[in-house]
Amino acid sequence: MSPVLRGIIPPVVTPFTQEGEVDLSALRAVIEHLLAGGCHGIFQLGSTSEVAYLTDTQREEILATTLDVVDGRVPVLAGCIDFTAKRVAEQAQRAEKLGVDGVVATGPIYALNAGEEVADHFRLIASAVNVPVYAYDVPVRVHSKLSVDLLITLGKEGVIAGVKDSSGDDVSFRRLIRANRAHGSPLALYTGHETVCDSMVMAGADGIVPGLGNVDPAGYVRLWDAAVSDDWIQARVEQERLNDLFDIVFTSERRSGDASGVGAFKTAMVELGIM
Amino acid sequence: MSPVLRGIIPPVVTPFTQEGEVDLSALRAVIEHLLAGGCHGIFQLGSTSEVAYLTDTQREEILATTLDVVDGRVPVLAGCIDFTAKRVAEQAQRAEKLGVDGVVATGPIYALNAGEEVADHFRLIASAVNVPVYAYDVPVRVHSKLSVDLLITLGKEGVIAGVKDSSGDDVSFRRLIRANRAHGSPLALYTGHETVCDSMVMAGADGIVPGLGNVDPAGYVRLWDAAVSDDWIQARVEQERLNDLFDIVFTSERRSGDASGVGAFKTAMVELGIM
Amino acid sequence: MSPVLRGIIPPVVTPFTQEGEVDLSALRAVIEHLLAGGCHGIFQLGSTSEVAYLTDTQREEILATTLDVVDGRVPVLAGCIDFTAKRVAEQAQRAEKLGVDGVVATGPIYALNAGEEVADHFRLIASAVNVPVYAYDVPVRVHSKLSVDLLITLGKEGVIAGVKDSSGDDVSFRRLIRANRAHGSPLALYTGHETVCDSMVMAGADGIVPGLGNVDPAGYVRLWDAAVSDDWIQARVEQERLNDLFDIVFTSERRSGDASGVGAFKTAMVELGIM
Amino acid sequence: MSPVLRGIIPPVVTPFTQEGEVDLSALRAVIEHLLAGGCHGIFQLGSTSEVAYLTDTQREEILATTLDVVDGRVPVLAGCIDFTAKRVAEQAQRAEKLGVDGVVATGPIYALNAGEEVADHFRLIASAVNVPVYAYDVPVRVHSKLSVDLLITLGKEGVIAGVKDSSGDDVSFRRLIRANRAHGSPLALYTGHETVCDSMVMAGADGIVPGLGNVDPAGYVRLWDAAVSDDWIQARVEQERLNDLFDIVFTSERRSGDASGVGAFKTAMVELGIM
Repeated sequence: MSPVLRGIIPPVVTPFTQEGEVDLSALRAVIEHLLAGGCHGIFQLGSTSEVAYLTDTQREEILATTLDVVDGRVPVLAGCIDFTAKRVAEQAQRAEKLGVDGVVATGPIYALNAGEEVADHFRLIASAVNVPVYAYDVPVRVHSKLSVDLLITLGKEGVIAGVKDSSGDDVSFRRLIRANRAHGSPLALYTGHETVCDSMVMAGADGIVPGLGNVDPAGYVRLWDAAVSDDWIQARVEQERLNDLFDIVFTSERRSGDASGVGAFKTAMVELGIM
Repeated sequence: MSPVLRGIIPPVVTPFTQEGEVDLSALRAVIEHLLAGGCHGIFQLGSTSEVAYLTDTQREEILATTLDVVDGRVPVLAGCIDFTAKRVAEQAQRAEKLGVDGVVATGPIYALNAGEEVADHFRLIASAVNVPVYAYDVPVRVHSKLSVDLLITLGKEGVIAGVKDSSGDDVSFRRLIRANRAHGSPLALYTGHETVCDSMVMAGADGIVPGLGNVDPAGYVRLWDAAVSDDWIQARVEQERLNDLFDIVFTSERRSGDASGVGAFKTAMVELGIM
Repeated sequence: MSPVLRGIIPPVVTPFTQEGEVDLSALRAVIEHLLAGGCHGIFQLGSTSEVAYLTDTQREEILATTLDVVDGRVPVLAGCIDFTAKRVAEQAQRAEKLGVDGVVATGPIYALNAGEEVADHFRLIASAVNVPVYAYDVPVRVHSKLSVDLLITLGKEGVIAGVKDSSGDDVSFRRLIRANRAHGSPLALYTGHETVCDSMVMAGADGIVPGLGNVDPAGYVRLWDAAVSDDWIQARVEQERLNDLFDIVFTSERRSGDASGVGAFKTAMVELGIM
Repeated sequence: MSPVLRGIIPPVVTPFTQEGEVDLSALRAVIEHLLAGGCHGIFQLGSTSEVAYLTDTQREEILATTLDVVDGRVPVLAGCIDFTAKRVAEQAQRAEKLGVDGVVATGPIYALNAGEEVADHFRLIASAVNVPVYAYDVPVRVHSKLSVDLLITLGKEGVIAGVKDSSGDDVSFRRLIRANRAHGSPLALYTGHETVCDSMVMAGADGIVPGLGNVDPAGYVRLWDAAVSDDWIQARVEQERLNDLFDIVFTSERRSGDASGVGAFKTAMVELGIM
């Protein structure tokens, strides 16, 4: 096993042209911007990439371009978002072939599964690839939560290497941190909650996957650096500055959760000249 | 427009071999059994087919085999289950190319959409194919409900030709029937609730998509024939006999919604020698 | 045990004065209107009465007035809506003392209970009074559903005499009807779904508790009479006429579920001169 | 306005006798234990008190006893848990008469309200008493969330003096903290999440209402003292020790959310000789 990836790992947004095609050259600029900000890794094809709207062909183009730009400077993780294990495994094998450093998969979608079936889902995915698999806990989209017990079990089995938590349930995330430590830390634990990073690092998170990091990656890196130096007052100052910035998400009068959240990030990036 | 498809249109189960591969020859036998029972149409790649677990390759094999067996004897509708419009459109184009008579699509999955975005989702799908598009309302899996107003709007626009309702909300389905009639019946309205078909036909449903129809298609055809002859007492007798049979769904101690429901149908079919 | 109450049992609305006090004389007029329409029973202090907004004093006044007007002409059931068993039992004892013919209670509210705890809840309520207890299944307000198994168990034990189903889940209600029959019909089964009464009576419901019955009780009584004569075509005609009337519920631009539903009934009643 | 109450304000558990009666002398011992631990206030008749199971008479006895024991040493807040404003106001007036320092009320329960109706609910309650009113946000029981905008509006109007947040949504709680500060801090903000207190105080919470504080009040007071001294490392050490203790909640094989959570605290207190 390679050492645990720690730090700021933004979920990259996808620029589109006016015609609705993926704008690969704008994507290159976005990724250079993230690396210039000091990010420690890249999470491609997460929910923030609007992955659910992308065809398989578009997903491959995005991934290939990302890997080409990053060129080994930091690890690249790829979301492999599909309904169930066999379909996810096909996505993961394509990503592995392109050269990603890890794949990120949710629990079953559309299917009505429970308990051991969800564990088997991850086991089948892990058996299909040679790169680490990360569990992606995002109940607002998948409509079920991955339990602490399930995640620890899969970690101890070596099925998953970590968890990307977008559940909004920080009480549970902190329980996961404690349980992981009690079992020898088999899992790397990342949170997607960009507005409470200081607290989450204080609690023991290994990294942050902030959508808002597309807009201000350097700010998140400063927050991270302060936090890992135990300078909690500075970490909080940086967090609160970022939270003021985050209010752009709530000013939108756009049409839905997807439009207001990711849309706000992208609008800000255009205005800042990032893309 | 062709005349409205009316009657019993079972959602076909998918037989698997011991090794977990699709058993195409068993599938042929299942479909012959449904046609021998007098079914008026075939719904392939619906939730009952375990579509979420099938790869695209498996979906194509199933569809091609189904069309080959049916050979024009009744219309074949195909579920095109994917996250959002572009991905669904790709599924729909593949199905159209294979020769289906209509495609069936849910609202957006995984995406967080609202109102007009959902209407646009169906408009984009309809613009990608030349066969009729049916909206599939299945909140237990998609986690949002298609409203009566949305469906009527899409029907009047000619975007959708009908609705397959698996919402469990018969009060709403009856409102849909009334609203559809008030607007000149642009939609064909099918219900998936196999245990209340007599009521739904009495209320004005154009057809039934009963999972249990895999086990006893002839029984559902008898129920239909009684109902359309206004012989409600005989329809109810047949319905209650079928409901006794349906109890197999609740006897299972299997692992989840998918395993207990579809699993029970398939177990019964094996015991009856259907597959 | 007295014979099972069958037929139309409207949940009475509560008239208020301009000052927000209960208008007891208008209430008398409403009840006379319901009895003149031929209703077979009266359900007082149900959700349609806005019971959650009424103080205990107001509840007692309403119940006493109702019993005084009805004067034994038909049975009167009283909703006893409170959080948990001891509190519900206090409400039920007050209602019994006033002379009601039965009490209607939901499962636990606010409390986080499960399985056998819910059964014990009804057992404790039943042990506190000598009148029949009816279970009130209204998940939109109580946020959990009473299962078919639980209700049958309580019926066989003699804890509850019946069920008032406002769950919106007619598939489940029909399962309850079948299970009840299979166990010797210990329960009287009423539905609150005013727009599908023909179907529900056809399926075996013992009665209907229609909020819209406040506006047109005679229409529901005609529907009932047609249905119990197996004249399903006439029952459907009457149901569809009532459903056209029911559309008043959807025309409101008022503020919430409570305001638009009950508010529409009351507005119609004022315009019709009923109150 | 009196100065803002800050610190540890445990929600007191209710001891019962074997016969199921409230054990007032054990309650006295519990409260003395909390005060000996250094708690800064007492929250009586919250969810942890099993308030939903208590009759009005029991609630009054508990409140009177609590006020008698506390005897002005710290402020006492009283939960006034009922369905809607008039009923809550009656509870609040009884509590005020007994001498509490503030009342705590949820949004409407059982009623189906929205937006401005919820604001009016709190306005009516506040108009009925002369003590400060605190909003209690507990969606797991009330089944709707109080929005940041609503709470800030009510704070600026002087309707509510603060918020007790048991929503489990710490991202939202942190947004509330920021919004409150931006509007001149009209609200005192308390969290009920006993396992993330260090983070919440770092984020700006005015106090903690920890159910586990019944078992180890002195531990929470030490955590608080470390946090307000900006000694975050010590605060975290204390938090993690408490979180190990909190695992008793998850060891229970009892019957429901209420039984496993509150039941675990009470079992621990009996074993520790607190009651």
